[in-house]
Amino acid sequence: MTKPPASKVISDIDYEKEGRQVSRLFMPHSHNDSAWGAVAIPVVVVKNGSGPTLLLTAGTHGDEYEGQIALLELARTLRPEQIQGRVIIIPALHFPACQVGKRLSPIDGRDINRSFPGDPAGSFAQALAHYVTNFLLPLADVNIDLHSGGRSLDCLPSTMSHILDDKAVLERTIALAKAFGAPLHVMNREVDGAHTFQSTAERMGVISMSSELGGCNRVSLDGLAIARRGIVNALVHLGIADGQIERPAEPTRAMVIPASGDYGFAPASGIYCPRVPLGAIVSAGDAVGDIYRIEDPELPPHPVVARRAGMLWCQRGQGRIQTGDSSAVVVSAYEAAP
Amino acid sequence: MTKPPASKVISDIDYEKEGRQVSRLFMPHSHNDSAWGAVAIPVVVVKNGSGPTLLLTAGTHGDEYEGQIALLELARTLRPEQIQGRVIIIPALHFPACQVGKRLSPIDGRDINRSFPGDPAGSFAQALAHYVTNFLLPLADVNIDLHSGGRSLDCLPSTMSHILDDKAVLERTIALAKAFGAPLHVMNREVDGAHTFQSTAERMGVISMSSELGGCNRVSLDGLAIARRGIVNALVHLGIADGQIERPAEPTRAMVIPASGDYGFAPASGIYCPRVPLGAIVSAGDAVGDIYRIEDPELPPHPVVARRAGMLWCQRGQGRIQTGDSSAVVVSAYEAAP
Amino acid sequence: MTKPPASKVISDIDYEKEGRQVSRLFMPHSHNDSAWGAVAIPVVVVKNGSGPTLLLTAGTHGDEYEGQIALLELARTLRPEQIQGRVIIIPALHFPACQVGKRLSPIDGRDINRSFPGDPAGSFAQALAHYVTNFLLPLADVNIDLHSGGRSLDCLPSTMSHILDDKAVLERTIALAKAFGAPLHVMNREVDGAHTFQSTAERMGVISMSSELGGCNRVSLDGLAIARRGIVNALVHLGIADGQIERPAEPTRAMVIPASGDYGFAPASGIYCPRVPLGAIVSAGDAVGDIYRIEDPELPPHPVVARRAGMLWCQRGQGRIQTGDSSAVVVSAYEAAP
Amino acid sequence: MTKPPASKVISDIDYEKEGRQVSRLFMPHSHNDSAWGAVAIPVVVVKNGSGPTLLLTAGTHGDEYEGQIALLELARTLRPEQIQGRVIIIPALHFPACQVGKRLSPIDGRDINRSFPGDPAGSFAQALAHYVTNFLLPLADVNIDLHSGGRSLDCLPSTMSHILDDKAVLERTIALAKAFGAPLHVMNREVDGAHTFQSTAERMGVISMSSELGGCNRVSLDGLAIARRGIVNALVHLGIADGQIERPAEPTRAMVIPASGDYGFAPASGIYCPRVPLGAIVSAGDAVGDIYRIEDPELPPHPVVARRAGMLWCQRGQGRIQTGDSSAVVVSAYEAAP
Amino acid sequence: MTKPPASKVISDIDYEKEGRQVSRLFMPHSHNDSAWGAVAIPVVVVKNGSGPTLLLTAGTHGDEYEGQIALLELARTLRPEQIQGRVIIIPALHFPACQVGKRLSPIDGRDINRSFPGDPAGSFAQALAHYVTNFLLPLADVNIDLHSGGRSLDCLPSTMSHILDDKAVLERTIALAKAFGAPLHVMNREVDGAHTFQSTAERMGVISMSSELGGCNRVSLDGLAIARRGIVNALVHLGIADGQIERPAEPTRAMVIPASGDYGFAPASGIYCPRVPLGAIVSAGDAVGDIYRIEDPELPPHPVVARRAGMLWCQRGQGRIQTGDSSAVVVSAYEAAP
Amino acid sequence: MTKPPASKVISDIDYEKEGRQVSRLFMPHSHNDSAWGAVAIPVVVVKNGSGPTLLLTAGTHGDEYEGQIALLELARTLRPEQIQGRVIIIPALHFPACQVGKRLSPIDGRDINRSFPGDPAGSFAQALAHYVTNFLLPLADVNIDLHSGGRSLDCLPSTMSHILDDKAVLERTIALAKAFGAPLHVMNREVDGAHTFQSTAERMGVISMSSELGGCNRVSLDGLAIARRGIVNALVHLGIADGQIERPAEPTRAMVIPASGDYGFAPASGIYCPRVPLGAIVSAGDAVGDIYRIEDPELPPHPVVARRAGMLWCQRGQGRIQTGDSSAVVVSAYEAAP
Repeated sequence: MTKPPASKVISDIDYEKEGRQVSRLFMPHSHNDSAWGAVAIPVVVVKNGSGPTLLLTAGTHGDEYEGQIALLELARTLRPEQIQGRVIIIPALHFPACQVGKRLSPIDGRDINRSFPGDPAGSFAQALAHYVTNFLLPLADVNIDLHSGGRSLDCLPSTMSHILDDKAVLERTIALAKAFGAPLHVMNREVDGAHTFQSTAERMGVISMSSELGGCNRVSLDGLAIARRGIVNALVHLGIADGQIERPAEPTRAMVIPASGDYGFAPASGIYCPRVPLGAIVSAGDAVGDIYRIEDPELPPHPVVARRAGMLWCQRGQGRIQTGDSSAVVVSAYEAAP
Repeated sequence: MTKPPASKVISDIDYEKEGRQVSRLFMPHSHNDSAWGAVAIPVVVVKNGSGPTLLLTAGTHGDEYEGQIALLELARTLRPEQIQGRVIIIPALHFPACQVGKRLSPIDGRDINRSFPGDPAGSFAQALAHYVTNFLLPLADVNIDLHSGGRSLDCLPSTMSHILDDKAVLERTIALAKAFGAPLHVMNREVDGAHTFQSTAERMGVISMSSELGGCNRVSLDGLAIARRGIVNALVHLGIADGQIERPAEPTRAMVIPASGDYGFAPASGIYCPRVPLGAIVSAGDAVGDIYRIEDPELPPHPVVARRAGMLWCQRGQGRIQTGDSSAVVVSAYEAAP
Repeated sequence: MTKPPASKVISDIDYEKEGRQVSRLFMPHSHNDSAWGAVAIPVVVVKNGSGPTLLLTAGTHGDEYEGQIALLELARTLRPEQIQGRVIIIPALHFPACQVGKRLSPIDGRDINRSFPGDPAGSFAQALAHYVTNFLLPLADVNIDLHSGGRSLDCLPSTMSHILDDKAVLERTIALAKAFGAPLHVMNREVDGAHTFQSTAERMGVISMSSELGGCNRVSLDGLAIARRGIVNALVHLGIADGQIERPAEPTRAMVIPASGDYGFAPASGIYCPRVPLGAIVSAGDAVGDIYRIEDPELPPHPVVARRAGMLWCQRGQGRIQTGDSSAVVVSAYEAAP
Repeated sequence: MTKPPASKVISDIDYEKEGRQVSRLFMPHSHNDSAWGAVAIPVVVVKNGSGPTLLLTAGTHGDEYEGQIALLELARTLRPEQIQGRVIIIPALHFPACQVGKRLSPIDGRDINRSFPGDPAGSFAQALAHYVTNFLLPLADVNIDLHSGGRSLDCLPSTMSHILDDKAVLERTIALAKAFGAPLHVMNREVDGAHTFQSTAERMGVISMSSELGGCNRVSLDGLAIARRGIVNALVHLGIADGQIERPAEPTRAMVIPASGDYGFAPASGIYCPRVPLGAIVSAGDAVGDIYRIEDPELPPHPVVARRAGMLWCQRGQGRIQTGDSSAVVVSAYEAAP
Repeated sequence: MTKPPASKVISDIDYEKEGRQVSRLFMPHSHNDSAWGAVAIPVVVVKNGSGPTLLLTAGTHGDEYEGQIALLELARTLRPEQIQGRVIIIPALHFPACQVGKRLSPIDGRDINRSFPGDPAGSFAQALAHYVTNFLLPLADVNIDLHSGGRSLDCLPSTMSHILDDKAVLERTIALAKAFGAPLHVMNREVDGAHTFQSTAERMGVISMSSELGGCNRVSLDGLAIARRGIVNALVHLGIADGQIERPAEPTRAMVIPASGDYGFAPASGIYCPRVPLGAIVSAGDAVGDIYRIEDPELPPHPVVARRAGMLWCQRGQGRIQTGDSSAVVVSAYEAAP
Repeated sequence: MTKPPASKVISDIDYEKEGRQVSRLFMPHSHNDSAWGAVAIPVVVVKNGSGPTLLLTAGTHGDEYEGQIALLELARTLRPEQIQGRVIIIPALHFPACQVGKRLSPIDGRDINRSFPGDPAGSFAQALAHYVTNFLLPLADVNIDLHSGGRSLDCLPSTMSHILDDKAVLERTIALAKAFGAPLHVMNREVDGAHTFQSTAERMGVISMSSELGGCNRVSLDGLAIARRGIVNALVHLGIADGQIERPAEPTRAMVIPASGDYGFAPASGIYCPRVPLGAIVSAGDAVGDIYRIEDPELPPHPVVARRAGMLWCQRGQGRIQTGDSSAVVVSAYEAAP
């Protein structure tokens, strides 16, 4: 095995050590007010004997909160004697973005989830992605990276994964999602995903799942409850923790986003007003929302129509919308290929 | 009667003309890219014979959308033959703030609702407030200024007014609120209100009511439905429109915010996570939320406690909170003084 | 005579001293990088015996260059023996705006020409306006403040003044303009002018004239030639300098901007494309330009029409235009009231 | 033929379809206010049978307007029956820069004309350049990319191309320019051009021409008239449209910029004042302009001298100049190598 | 006595209560991310029986640290049994400026020390100054407001006060300074001081002293030691604390800044390089520093000369200097008027 | 030898020419206000016959001044007859950063000292680094790149170099440092240095030394005196200039920074207050400073402890510190490996 390329990250974590470690990843960040400084990213590693390794991350986008809260709780409380194997927890991965509650980092303006597999000589996000790719993913059997809709979107609480050609891996991922137990598990074909965390994990053979747990830049109590329960369920499902999986009242439904053009790019700028709530069943051509234009009180609102039938799963999470912003996404029931 | 001081606003609106007028208020705005330009603020005036004048405004804060939508609809559709009296509608009053969906204006960084009674030689917001005070409020018998929680707050849909010493005016305002028909009507003693739109209207003898119809910088379908119904109900209640008031299933409950220190200034910075949803009944000392700090996974969340018993009416509308931000407001049932 | 209120300006200029003085007005400006610093505004005073005082200013707006150049030349070369009386020259009055070539100051975001009569305790622009009002205008018989269109406008080279009720002053001003000798002298009734330099000078009994010498944020060679000649002509006309007035081939034509609503606020945003050049004679209702919208290639351009007949004197000086920006101004021949 | 690398652009355009298509290129742009949004770039394709393909672009720099207007008009009006072959029209290529009327994009701060051949994993401008290189240029026989001077320069209306080693291609390009019919056709050896649109097109064997049609960030009526006529002439010249070439009164003169150091980097900061207008014939060592320094009225202006004899073709388009900015460019008559 | 005008500040501090109180002043601050929020400014009040009241403040400018540290220590440790009278301590008065370590507030861009006596309806700094003027200064017999040079200046550690016409007050102030025991006590006539904290306190009859304890935006260990010792000495001198005044080795020397034009406005921009260290004795006309200009290696440095003889007390605290910045201040020995 | 890749830099410097040349490197910089402009970086080359080439640079970081001053003086005064060999002097290398006195460039936000070996198609800093690597370093036998602490650090005046595996080069570098004669010569193993100027020079076989001459964003008179003397000493030591090396009173002490984790990342945010001055001898575990938190006057300061024994060589140069900023660096005596 070749040695991974050097990272700029400085840390005293020993991922092979038994027990509980609470420390930081120090990523050097040289700027006008700090020539030799670093950003300190908290990480907790809990290890007990042999067993699978689960890498749990949240805060890949700083304005997605349910996962950050659920992992902060787990990171504070998980003890070696509760597990068999290893759990690596980073509750606020893209830490500079989490500090300001934004999708992008104030340091380099980048989305770390478009910066994989990373570059040790690149910007902050690229160098951090490089560390994840080369020093964390090789340790992991499974990665769960917890997302929500962020400020621009509002989604029905769901887990997510990609439609993979490898049926065995696809089935293992769906089984993980069903154990996690969100109301929906939404799958899509990776679009513009060459540089995402999840695609990188998949290419490295890691079982990989993410989520959408709410949105509108606020904490969803429903989404948070689903995340809390799902993480424990996943630990049990993977054989890392003992116990029973806590099943929701309704089993998880598998859904798909059929095509890459289905993100409902807004045809105008204004105030986006939904006509129907999330979860509504719509037909192709139905108006699912309207765009109101404040500059002209004589102008009727501009309707936004569904391109295909299905369930309204995601819509604009802010009042104002700009031409080209995603307005509404409809999902269909997943039919496993025979 | 003394002539009102001159305003910089240029408009061809004649408020005394019968019929329907759709026009703009042009407020001169001289800046680097436009020496002699203006901001065009749409206004619709509908007048038919004699009868009271209702001044309807929204967009006093640009990130409060339900009122803007409801008034854009009314402005587009209201016709003279439907009314007796006069309705003046400004769906996006602080227009520069509405264009960017922010509380404050990008022009002068001001909250117009802290800029009353205004100043014709002041900044944009001050000069606009001056026009409202001197050219619109003198025409009005009643003002309804529609607010929501904006991006920083999330509120139960409510109308609002001040606890006034003049019992007759107080009763007329509560009657208007009950006709409007929001689930709650919340009253408070004006704090730091010397410069608000509502206090200015009150000082001028105008019956004055506002609202909180949602928040989190998104459009609330519930809040919007309440606004749409309430506006029509108000027109009927005031005798401007014919018809029946559409009563909600539950009559409006009158509530109060007991004291000015009850806005729940956050004791720390982090992610604000509610423990209970809006509408929950809490006791004094109950934890209503927690502040999670991403920089230290060993630190337990910092609880936020209710200072008094009542109903949780408003809470933080964004995931991130800073020390001093309002976190949670509890209201009590209003007991009319004997 | 009451003592003028104290100014923050520090200077060693003695306006009563005979001869030539070249110095600075130091206006204290305390900011993050300079606690006790000041902005140094060059001023040149040339005095010789008795005679009228002419106050010459340019750079009231930083992106208007012809006057700055003409006054820098005069300031460098004028000698006491050439005059009888006093000439006070400030080539770059709103110095911080001139340094960046913007209409507004980067210090306080203000237009000094909306900040008169000023306030010694106000912002930088207000404190500077206060100095001009209280320490310079009382010395002056005549003020010529040289403007151009700045980046947002392009104008036919003209002198300008207000239509004053005092016929004697009006006639003296027009006589000054005719001596100056720009192709046009454009007069308007002051609108929103309570806080301009010119209105303040007029209220103080100073003969007051300004100009528009070009625009588009570039130096107009024609406008500069007119300014250079006009300043010398004015010195001769006022009896400060000896010599002959250099008459242009065509005498100055007196024009008016008829009404305050005639500034042609743009009805849409896009690229402003004139249909006719400056100086064209148009009829009411003629399209004088079009607004092209890049977001929709099916949409025809939105025409901008002249509200009244006359000569196209001023139009948008940048390619992009926003709703409400001034697009085109038409002037008419001035008919002196009988 | 190898498949071009995948692009992030989503579009329903079928470049091989007969007839007229009006659509958008959706370039995904994930940012704080839009996680899954896109920028919509209008494109019009008109195809009729066989014949050459002309790719027409403008808005490569957002503050260059004549080409955007001329192509918006052509895009709105061109119909299949008018042509033989294919015309692909993108009137506002670097759309985010065009929306704000700036040379660089507000998204990534890049000049797309320094971002070729592009990178699908790079920034917005790089990913868009990649689409042009890999999906549009391979379809084109000829590319005309319409530029103007932007806000910083003012140029005599001209077409432009590179001095190419391949004489046949050079001759075909000059013939195209002469058909287009601008007063001047200016050629230079590519400097720092490895990453321009034009160089990339040339390397791919596409006949490639650009232009300078005005400047100063305003619309030049002369430049626009030349662009309108030139585009139609080019369609006729290329055999795509029927008809007669409309010849200008004076035939196009071929000129060259002799050397890469001839861009006249300003030796000081201040106000740039030309001494002579564009088109003037100057000798080496002639002062073509002066830099005036407002901070010192005793300092004479700093002259800027021509480095060689020729025609003044381009000069500073803004009043303020900084050390190192291009101040004046002189061109010479082109002498075809024997 | 008239009631002071209402303040927006909310606090549970009772200044008349015996004992030690640690609390906050909540100043409402309504902005885009917090509609009903506040800034929490720590305040500590320690009271024991009767005796004088000393108001101790630091952080009036956020980049002046020695006073903030010394007062944080006193605020944490002072107990009622140690005093007789009352001590009100605000270690970080202009709290938003202190959070960012800048002279001016990021909220309103204001220097609170140019915002007195304040305005309850003004900006944040003005409303806070109003609270100090109307609710704190009326309680105080003595105010010590601890300053340092901030980032732009470097000063010899000194106390400071104004040259007052009231000799008795002047003597009491000098006596306080001598007890405090800084190496120098520097006095000046108030210039541009109508709006400073100190002038306002003086007008209200409060003995008022400030300081300069270092600069360059760093913590001076010498200045800090002087502040720590001086505060205890002042408590003893005023009879609030028991004990002995700790006298420095050298008694405090009284000095004056002779005239308001002596702040050494820099004549050019570049790197400011002192020729002599602080404390040097210079003659009028001596070069005390040089300005180096990086843009021209042939240009000799521009010398900065002392305008009068004395001790170099203060000089530029940053490497870069701009024209008009204060470069060097010289002080003279104070000779009490006979 | 392969030809170096083309650079965008335009210059008339001939590095092989005998005598003294004063010129500029023009680096093209195309931006919104200058399409075809350039940044002009002064360079002075002095050559006389044969002899070694010394490349002297400062201003690699714009807020490090002592080297810029010392090299401006040398550049202005050095004459060919004073040397044997060649001296290339660039006093303000990263010129845009030097103009604003910041570590990073305002053009691209980059630290040029993290941008080596550079890229001709990259950003400004990358393209400039590429020129240095490919056109200057190949000419040099020795490079001295003069640094200071910048605004964020304060250091004891020192020269610096890397601990190299090549003992001969190491010894030659130490000999150069001893001739230069700073009080300390500090060596470290390169960490995160793949992209620094110094590492690049080393890889190219150039003897390479840098320095830390002060900090806190101010000019240190001690550090400047050391730089002035050291440069002359180096010229003599290298045989370029005649004369005697001026030895300091104390010979240079060789020191090391033992490990890469020893930069003292701050554990909290607040005001950093040193407990001991630079040069103090500390033991492992000693508190060397405290972080004071202004938000809570009850909280004791957070001590910062030394991780190992040695001399305190560097500490925070600003009052405010953020978590992760470098707070204090301790060095040990260098023991040459046997």
